[in-house]
Amino acid sequence: MTATNATAWLDKVCWNQDGLVPAIAQEFTSGRALTLAWMNREALQLTLSEGRAVYWSRSRGKIWRKGEQSGHVQEVREIRLDCDGDTILLLVDQRGGIACHTGRESCFYLQKTAGGWEEAEPVIKDPAGFYDDPENF
Amino acid sequence: MTATNATAWLDKVCWNQDGLVPAIAQEFTSGRALTLAWMNREALQLTLSEGRAVYWSRSRGKIWRKGEQSGHVQEVREIRLDCDGDTILLLVDQRGGIACHTGRESCFYLQKTAGGWEEAEPVIKDPAGFYDDPENF
Repeated sequence: MTATNATAWLDKVCWNQDGLVPAIAQEFTSGRALTLAWMNREALQLTLSEGRAVYWSRSRGKIWRKGEQSGHVQEVREIRLDCDGDTILLLVDQRGGIACHTGRESCFYLQKTAGGWEEAEPVIKDPAGFYDDPENF
Repeated sequence: MTATNATAWLDKVCWNQDGLVPAIAQEFTSGRALTLAWMNREALQLTLSEGRAVYWSRSRGKIWRKGEQSGHVQEVREIRLDCDGDTILLLVDQRGGIACHTGRESCFYLQKTAGGWEEAEPVIKDPAGFYDDPENF
């Protein structure tokens, strides 16, 4: 396989003006939507080659291997692309069952109710000491 | 309730520099990830008040009621916000079982394989005649 062929799949992704695309992570078994983070070309390439979710941290301006501090690695089962090529979907096994830097299973724990945004999910584990930056969780 | 209180929930969303946030739609029953589209403040307000997914069409620069041409409305069961307030998750009933303008259940039908991106899901219904713009589906 030539280098061109090996990277052709990356060229099919419609990177935005900052060279990024949003990437949804969804738990393979339960179907829970866990996180949305961002990837650049290198992050997507590393996600494939390492078999774990690797993102681009916009706040820190560097590659972010999800779980590098917390241990809550997202092991990748499938990588999907949407119809217009500008969003990635990862089907993952969420190690530890905790994706959110708050210690919850999913980052989407705030539910719109009549009173505003209410916390609809429990903290599974106190995240103190796990991390020092939400985008490095 | 004052006007301030009625819109306080919208102020908690971290709109990007273009006044938008990504919004994932997930089928309530099956858990299938269906689409990712974008919302501005008005679209999110309309999604709540109308009980159906309303997005901001970036290509057309206007409010887009999902399904307005195709009939494939996303009826909203829950609206969720993530931990850092910059992504919306909608749990929806996908009318017609087709979310994608290609006539597939989900927009995430391209799967990374050794050969590149391969179509991993069937077309349920030929979309010809349904729409004239993917972002107006």
